[in-house]
Amino acid sequence: MSAPAFRRLALIGIGLIGGSIALAARRAGIAAEIVAATRSAETAATAMRLKLVDRCDTDVAGVCAGADLVIVCTPVGACGETARLIAPSLQPGCIVSDVGSVKQAVIRDMAPHLPAHVHFVPAHPVAGTENSGPEAGFAELFDGRWCILTPLPGTPVEPVDRLEAFWKALGSHVERLDAADHDRILAITSHLPHLIAYTIVGTADDLGGHLNSEVLRFAAGGFRDFTRIAASDPTMWRDVFMNNREAVLEVLQRFQEDLFYLQRAIRWGEGDKLFDLFTRTRDIRRALIHLKQA
Amino acid sequence: MSAPAFRRLALIGIGLIGGSIALAARRAGIAAEIVAATRSAETAATAMRLKLVDRCDTDVAGVCAGADLVIVCTPVGACGETARLIAPSLQPGCIVSDVGSVKQAVIRDMAPHLPAHVHFVPAHPVAGTENSGPEAGFAELFDGRWCILTPLPGTPVEPVDRLEAFWKALGSHVERLDAADHDRILAITSHLPHLIAYTIVGTADDLGGHLNSEVLRFAAGGFRDFTRIAASDPTMWRDVFMNNREAVLEVLQRFQEDLFYLQRAIRWGEGDKLFDLFTRTRDIRRALIHLKQA
Repeated sequence: MSAPAFRRLALIGIGLIGGSIALAARRAGIAAEIVAATRSAETAATAMRLKLVDRCDTDVAGVCAGADLVIVCTPVGACGETARLIAPSLQPGCIVSDVGSVKQAVIRDMAPHLPAHVHFVPAHPVAGTENSGPEAGFAELFDGRWCILTPLPGTPVEPVDRLEAFWKALGSHVERLDAADHDRILAITSHLPHLIAYTIVGTADDLGGHLNSEVLRFAAGGFRDFTRIAASDPTMWRDVFMNNREAVLEVLQRFQEDLFYLQRAIRWGEGDKLFDLFTRTRDIRRALIHLKQA
Repeated sequence: MSAPAFRRLALIGIGLIGGSIALAARRAGIAAEIVAATRSAETAATAMRLKLVDRCDTDVAGVCAGADLVIVCTPVGACGETARLIAPSLQPGCIVSDVGSVKQAVIRDMAPHLPAHVHFVPAHPVAGTENSGPEAGFAELFDGRWCILTPLPGTPVEPVDRLEAFWKALGSHVERLDAADHDRILAITSHLPHLIAYTIVGTADDLGGHLNSEVLRFAAGGFRDFTRIAASDPTMWRDVFMNNREAVLEVLQRFQEDLFYLQRAIRWGEGDKLFDLFTRTRDIRRALIHLKQA
């Protein structure tokens, strides 16, 4: 058996994603040592109790000493401050990455703080559940899911290849994208669906009156899916919307226009317009299933 | 073993719901004979090949002869015409029901055609999948799901109790609601979620350009759920929106207002407004899970 590809993996933040990375990295045997730090002493204690990592404390800077791979697993809004804190402890040649659902803002916030002697390779594992915290982590989270790398122009090939190998070892498919393209694609495939799910669950709750408990009780297929999505971590998602503003507003406007088109068709009894769209979306689903199987 | 509660169950329409009723009713042993009719000879042949029922043809009126329970399993928009066609064949004391996702329009369209010597008890099994047609049916579809009865004022207790026993035998929980309340509740828990899912999948597809295939490829959690919902039967859902217009437009307007509130918060960087809603919806999800367990 060859030596692990990384000597020391340091995770900053040990919630659903950080905890899952720790467990998946151990499963893969890809790091000789896995350490973590988090701002909350309670979370650190939980991570130790769950044996997620070899060592976990609240010394965010200190934990990076001697690490050849550091992955920032905080909410997007905390990435910049985290980069500032860890910068002095990063060893030359270290790969610094993240797991943020937004890439341009993370690059904007982190890059200026990082020393020239490290390799910054932003990444986004497109995986998650509605649960959060270290207890939510599990080794299989990334199996068969995409991890998107958005390396900056001028980054050497070798650290990007090493990070790609890391994520493949964790079970992911890896793709490289331009950061701006990433943010536009995720705005429609992930950020807008989450915003809509949050909205509709709130709208349903506000209906109030004698129907309120019935609404929850008879929550049908569609709505139950939405409540699950709308239970996702509030801090993480606030940060996503605050940091992918332009792309989200752009797709939100298109969505609103399309929804008004259907609203008008319902008001005027134009069933053919609904039928045409519903037939088209069914075909899109089939194309998606076909893509997965291919 | 006691005799089956029904002598002959006749299903008009034998797609996902009709087929599943046939299989679940046979599993329960609740009808001595199960027959069906559908407008399409091809569908009838498929139903026979799959052995969903004892007899299936295209004689919609004829199949009702001798039945003591007739369930109309067509799209909502076809219920009125179906009631007109079957009315002359219905035997005295027969229970006539349906499975429509909208109840006021079904009552409006069916009741005038039905003879006084039958008992009309509208019903809505809140269950389904994105698949349709007789091949999609399965016996477990209704297990643990709600079936909502919306009996008309003046209907005797006995036929309503018998239909409730029928649905319980098929595995459902049964509740009785006023038809107008039903339509308002389902507008928010089922109809609006479906309309939104259809819309967002269309919006994503329209983004076009070089991002289009990437959008499908990286379809993340939220979007994948939406494409599944948006693959539901186009005819069924067109009819739902055409026939629950007022309730859907009402909740759609509330939803649009709430979405604009969040859109404005994103534009102006008001993260606290997002955080407050996201925290509230997480609590609603927990209440929902608690309700299920209770």
